Amino acid sequence: MASLPGPTFTVSAERLRRDLEHVASYGATASGGVARTSFTDADRRVRAWLADRCEEAGLRLRTDAVGNVFMRLEAPGAPPDTPPVWAGSHLDSVPEGGRFDGALGSLAALEVVRRLAEERVQLRRPVEAVVFADEEGSYHHLLGSTALVRGFSADELAALRGRDGTRLVDALQAMGFDAQAATRVKLSPGDVHAYVELHIEQGAVLESAGATIGVVTAIVGIGSGWLEFRGRQDHAGTTPMALRRDALRGAGDLVARLPEVARSVSADAVATCGIVHVEPGAANVVPALVRLSLDFRDPDRGRLLSLEDAVVAAAHAAAERHALEVTYTRESIIDPVPLDPTMQELVATAAAERGLPALHLPSGAGHDAQNIARLAPTGMIFVPSVGGRSHSPAEATRWEDVEAGANVLLATVHALATG
Amino acid sequence: MASLPGPTFTVSAERLRRDLEHVASYGATASGGVARTSFTDADRRVRAWLADRCEEAGLRLRTDAVGNVFMRLEAPGAPPDTPPVWAGSHLDSVPEGGRFDGALGSLAALEVVRRLAEERVQLRRPVEAVVFADEEGSYHHLLGSTALVRGFSADELAALRGRDGTRLVDALQAMGFDAQAATRVKLSPGDVHAYVELHIEQGAVLESAGATIGVVTAIVGIGSGWLEFRGRQDHAGTTPMALRRDALRGAGDLVARLPEVARSVSADAVATCGIVHVEPGAANVVPALVRLSLDFRDPDRGRLLSLEDAVVAAAHAAAERHALEVTYTRESIIDPVPLDPTMQELVATAAAERGLPALHLPSGAGHDAQNIARLAPTGMIFVPSVGGRSHSPAEATRWEDVEAGANVLLATVHALATG
Repeated sequence: MASLPGPTFTVSAERLRRDLEHVASYGATASGGVARTSFTDADRRVRAWLADRCEEAGLRLRTDAVGNVFMRLEAPGAPPDTPPVWAGSHLDSVPEGGRFDGALGSLAALEVVRRLAEERVQLRRPVEAVVFADEEGSYHHLLGSTALVRGFSADELAALRGRDGTRLVDALQAMGFDAQAATRVKLSPGDVHAYVELHIEQGAVLESAGATIGVVTAIVGIGSGWLEFRGRQDHAGTTPMALRRDALRGAGDLVARLPEVARSVSADAVATCGIVHVEPGAANVVPALVRLSLDFRDPDRGRLLSLEDAVVAAAHAAAERHALEVTYTRESIIDPVPLDPTMQELVATAAAERGLPALHLPSGAGHDAQNIARLAPTGMIFVPSVGGRSHSPAEATRWEDVEAGANVLLATVHALATG
Repeated sequence: MASLPGPTFTVSAERLRRDLEHVASYGATASGGVARTSFTDADRRVRAWLADRCEEAGLRLRTDAVGNVFMRLEAPGAPPDTPPVWAGSHLDSVPEGGRFDGALGSLAALEVVRRLAEERVQLRRPVEAVVFADEEGSYHHLLGSTALVRGFSADELAALRGRDGTRLVDALQAMGFDAQAATRVKLSPGDVHAYVELHIEQGAVLESAGATIGVVTAIVGIGSGWLEFRGRQDHAGTTPMALRRDALRGAGDLVARLPEVARSVSADAVATCGIVHVEPGAANVVPALVRLSLDFRDPDRGRLLSLEDAVVAAAHAAAERHALEVTYTRESIIDPVPLDPTMQELVATAAAERGLPALHLPSGAGHDAQNIARLAPTGMIFVPSVGGRSHSPAEATRWEDVEAGANVLLATVHALATG
């Protein structure tokens, strides 16, 4: 595939920039970021805007029962049911997110499909720009792509709730989707020809290496769980320091040591405690219980499990130092997903043909691509994040990098759809 | 005073035990503790029960505008306006408290006054059993005794709110107190002859020394404030461990080191972080900000301030180790309060006369006594807490120690009222 002639045209960098800037107005926050969590009014408005763009460009728009959006360009000469080439990402954000995460890949995919249509490229396969629902997990992490690849039972769907307690099925219904059909959106391998996703790196590896294009080799495995340190509730005035069993001491001790624990496993390993719950949580009472969320990641499955073991061992050592007990409950392990080598080659070739410095690297974040990789050959293209910032209003990517990434996406999709 | 003949009678240990057990039913929790926060239904019911006891014993009951209760036994031969002897404590509890904290001193004072009445003791001064309002600070720490000693302005009162946001003035009004008069309950030195409070130790010093009676030498100084560690919000998957500025690492590092920091100041020094607030508080986001409550105590004012300095210096060192910034905001400093030496002698003599092993020690907890000490000579009597447990359903004191403490209180009040 990599030897096919590339497209003789490029994306409209100006139109793409205009679209990105406009879409950032849906859910815009005072701090310059975006709060566009799933199935909110901002989500509804960006979907309406997308529908107008499809109408304008002559693309067929379809929204499935969980809110995944497909914007389709037909391949007139192709046999019916020819599996489409997918390019896409997501348009929902974390509660206080940035302008590029998801939006870049979604709007670049739209731009690619529009350019293929405008240039009347002779396609061998239909192309669909796909916007996956609720990637950021307001209701379920990677909701839309999980529904497509693994499927949800009616019971599972009924149990899902948002941060504010809203039931997913009610939220879907309120958006006008047919929640009853949400159990039936699952696809099979072969239904999709290939998938490619352009995304910001959300880290600082490309920037510090001076690379414009990241060829993603794998998506890291992600483990999650809870550590619970238990000590004894005591009066903060009358219990001498040496007699305390302060649960926060053990929890704090562990968190301060996480860098060395991760380093002992691999250079790629990361471990994060982002949620802390203290009981009883009064200024004058020695903490009896501390619950810590644990998020741990590594691109290698064996090392991912070693990392979990190392953190739990360090938690036990910290508990022992402070006369506490500790328990660990695993919540989930998402296996690392190696991405298709042929897709990597296609992306690397597209970058090389454009003289763009590229780097192979794993993705530290989860993406819908890790689900779709079970359905079809999948590739990911990264562009640099300024300062590595993401999930923050400070998230930024230089416009020349946006353009470079979109053109690599165009070349990759072009090769897949015409080859 | 200490050479006066003691009373030839004792408290009714059985009646006191029955009262303590009955009062524990107001706000009883499933775990065997007490949830009797101020101005709740449980508080209202225990006040009604007290009123019945006063009626029964022929005591005059008065409740002031902030809810302090005075149960008075007159001294018929004394000149009008003879300052009364006070004995008392409080009947409110922390949200998940025990059966003895406050209740012991309140009900023992009632028992002492009842016994003086029953024995028709010739009093030179009136005696009042006092129950101070909101000692545990549902609205304001030591509310009732602060109103008596320092006073509150109307603006201060209007600003006070409970944990659930209820305004204090509304809560007082709902209890049937004249909230408008709450600015006018303040007393002057000389209005009270002396004050003595029996209380559980809430620590394990007496128990480990094998002492039954604690002669309290001082009430520790209590400082409070907030530490705020600031780092940078980053994606938990894409930011290598070494590039993070994780605010929780610094906060955790500090908390784990608090024992050595306190030890560097004095053997009595304690420092506690009981509230932890993490932003943004998501499992997959590196914490950008951690706010820690700081409670620090020492019986010596100079050492109290050294302790604050030492904790803040340790916080800065921890922040530096983890590439963070930290700020400290002092909320308040309550000076240590030495208790009256004559009162200490009176308590020690009463214990010695009964053959009760006694120990002089400071109080690590705050008490209404620290306020009343500014109004009148003040003493405190401690009895052991089993295992040092307090502010917890596990709070307990052996019944023989309850009886011993109540008889020392009786002898002390007897001496003060007849001497």
